[in-house]
Amino acid sequence: MPVGNIAPPQTIYVIDGVRLGITAAGVRYQNRDDVVLIEIGEGATTAAVTTSNAFCAAPVQILRRHIEQSQPRYLIINTGNANAATGSDGLARAQKVCEALAEQFGVAPEAVLPYSTGVIGEALNYQAIIDGLSAANQDLSADNWSRAAKGICTTDTVIKLDSSEVVTEDGQRYHITGISKGAGMIRPNMATMLGFVATDANIAKPLLDKMLLSLTEASFNRITVDGDTSTNDCCTLIATGRASGLVIDSEQHPHYEALFGALKSVFVRLAQLIVRDGEGATKFITVRVIGGASTQECCDVAYAVAHSPLVKTAFFASDPNWGRILAAVGYAGVTDLDSSQVNVALDEVMICERGGLASGYTESEGQRVMSRPEICIEIDLGRGSFSDTVYTCDLSYDYVKINADYRS
Amino acid sequence: MPVGNIAPPQTIYVIDGVRLGITAAGVRYQNRDDVVLIEIGEGATTAAVTTSNAFCAAPVQILRRHIEQSQPRYLIINTGNANAATGSDGLARAQKVCEALAEQFGVAPEAVLPYSTGVIGEALNYQAIIDGLSAANQDLSADNWSRAAKGICTTDTVIKLDSSEVVTEDGQRYHITGISKGAGMIRPNMATMLGFVATDANIAKPLLDKMLLSLTEASFNRITVDGDTSTNDCCTLIATGRASGLVIDSEQHPHYEALFGALKSVFVRLAQLIVRDGEGATKFITVRVIGGASTQECCDVAYAVAHSPLVKTAFFASDPNWGRILAAVGYAGVTDLDSSQVNVALDEVMICERGGLASGYTESEGQRVMSRPEICIEIDLGRGSFSDTVYTCDLSYDYVKINADYRS
Repeated sequence: MPVGNIAPPQTIYVIDGVRLGITAAGVRYQNRDDVVLIEIGEGATTAAVTTSNAFCAAPVQILRRHIEQSQPRYLIINTGNANAATGSDGLARAQKVCEALAEQFGVAPEAVLPYSTGVIGEALNYQAIIDGLSAANQDLSADNWSRAAKGICTTDTVIKLDSSEVVTEDGQRYHITGISKGAGMIRPNMATMLGFVATDANIAKPLLDKMLLSLTEASFNRITVDGDTSTNDCCTLIATGRASGLVIDSEQHPHYEALFGALKSVFVRLAQLIVRDGEGATKFITVRVIGGASTQECCDVAYAVAHSPLVKTAFFASDPNWGRILAAVGYAGVTDLDSSQVNVALDEVMICERGGLASGYTESEGQRVMSRPEICIEIDLGRGSFSDTVYTCDLSYDYVKINADYRS
Repeated sequence: MPVGNIAPPQTIYVIDGVRLGITAAGVRYQNRDDVVLIEIGEGATTAAVTTSNAFCAAPVQILRRHIEQSQPRYLIINTGNANAATGSDGLARAQKVCEALAEQFGVAPEAVLPYSTGVIGEALNYQAIIDGLSAANQDLSADNWSRAAKGICTTDTVIKLDSSEVVTEDGQRYHITGISKGAGMIRPNMATMLGFVATDANIAKPLLDKMLLSLTEASFNRITVDGDTSTNDCCTLIATGRASGLVIDSEQHPHYEALFGALKSVFVRLAQLIVRDGEGATKFITVRVIGGASTQECCDVAYAVAHSPLVKTAFFASDPNWGRILAAVGYAGVTDLDSSQVNVALDEVMICERGGLASGYTESEGQRVMSRPEICIEIDLGRGSFSDTVYTCDLSYDYVKINADYRS
């Protein structure tokens, strides 16, 4: 069961210039939506960030090349097969999908970006995807965000969708709608498994690239379920430009701040939804590290805590076994960390002061906080003014069950 | 259930100059051996390596100071409480144990090394340990290695003990006996949770220090259960010098090679026993990385694979889901790794050739190998001549159960 509020927003804004079509192409399973086609109108700009995994999948390799060469017009996404660790044959299969789509839709193959997610190391049934293109085409609609969010799911138990409207001080309205997927093999490094966000703002490509890096750093690059960085991570940001003729081309633009803030809120929400639906998750945990000498060391500490199987099982058990948190802080590799300066709190309850048990702490207080479904661990390193935050979930029987019982 | 052959050797050699006493002092639980006293005769040399965790426990801090100041005569070990993250009060409690023991046994407090293992962050019941000293003293015997191995256990399900005799080319006999403990919070960095090895060889202290570093690098520093580096890791090597008046003081000494080889064998065995008894372990996995451009990158890749929850759950399920292995290789951080040069084999079955599925590989072959209780993953990076090996276990329901159900 996913943790906390995972409901999509009441209003899902259409993004003028983006249409989505979904079909059950039978890539791996029958009668299950597994191919999503996203059409991007002319005049849009698009940015993508991809996995840092050296075994990056064939579609990721092609995507990187295509987005350099052309403004994308179609994104084609399949589940059921990641087309990763498939060598040159995998590249050829992904390329065949792009070419068939390009021919059918009258664009250059470079204007097509492929995305795959699913099992690693098996040959992609590309013919099934190609055969499904015309059904996906017929299904294209600006209203299809929810069905697309479902169509890109694998072990996800809920759809991940967020949407918002932002009104700038001078009255310009922009809309943002995005979807993401992922529940396991989650420790994105550049981007998450799959994320697609579109806005009708008009954003110059160089700025869009820069914004996407910054947005993913604060969202998809700050979540972890199991510490496994996927071969297929990819996050794409589309700016259709239909809301206004006004091009936003610098951080000094009067609309930039409001728009960036709204985008960040959607990105963080989509990233957190992945953790809330983390495989086997029963708790949503925010690891906030403050008082660091650098952002990097705060990030390192936060990830050490967020990855520790002992910390994660303690949270599953609602056991305020805070020594495990301290042990993880201690092995995070912070140079010359003075443990006697470290404070740790669980929500409003201080558990560790100056490296030892906090005065006034009681086990029942700890127990009370640990039984909550959403908990913030705040770690003060007591050596500077930098901070960072990572989102994770607990480690439960069901994580093992999901990953031991099924080939995902 | 521990994996594979975990039986102690038929012959457990006594080490002249070492006696061990065990008692149930009631540190945390009643009627359970929880204090072990090791007496070292005069004239011995002793080396210790300790955890790299910044939150290193109070006894570790005292041990580091004492071993600099004096040749140890007594080691005092308790289970049930790690005396870690206990601040200055924890240091005072550990010191009280050393002082009481020193007074009772007529040695300087600096000649006492304290060791603790158990729950982190709780106040040590030092009085129970002190009250148990006379019983431990009365129990002292050179024959007590097995009972001592049991006495230092916490969540361990079997004792870890190895013993061997080495005869040099010129007919000198040396004996080595060692014990270790640990099943969770295992990713030693400098040493394991607790390891004690003694030999009757006569080894100069500077050489002994150097040997211990090298021995732990090849054994305790190459195992992982859950990736959590403990606050209390400590490994101690004692050379009583009783076997011969001949001092071994350099690597050129004619006895060095045979003795080092025998010690290494005991160290590796003791380290592997910890993995075989890893919390919830059902499989013993050797991750061997060859063809690297440096030992460090081989080590990084081996640990990435050994720590991956997805790889570990796949092994638990006997599922040859080799894509997860490749994904872990891919995110291990090897600079400019060319995935098309990477080969992976499970025991004798080649599963991945040049970054893709191996020709001739069949799922049933993979299944056959994966169902074995002991499996070697060999990863050839195809870019150099360096190698490294890490030992780990799978991730099962029982790991979650052990760490979620009990405060350990």
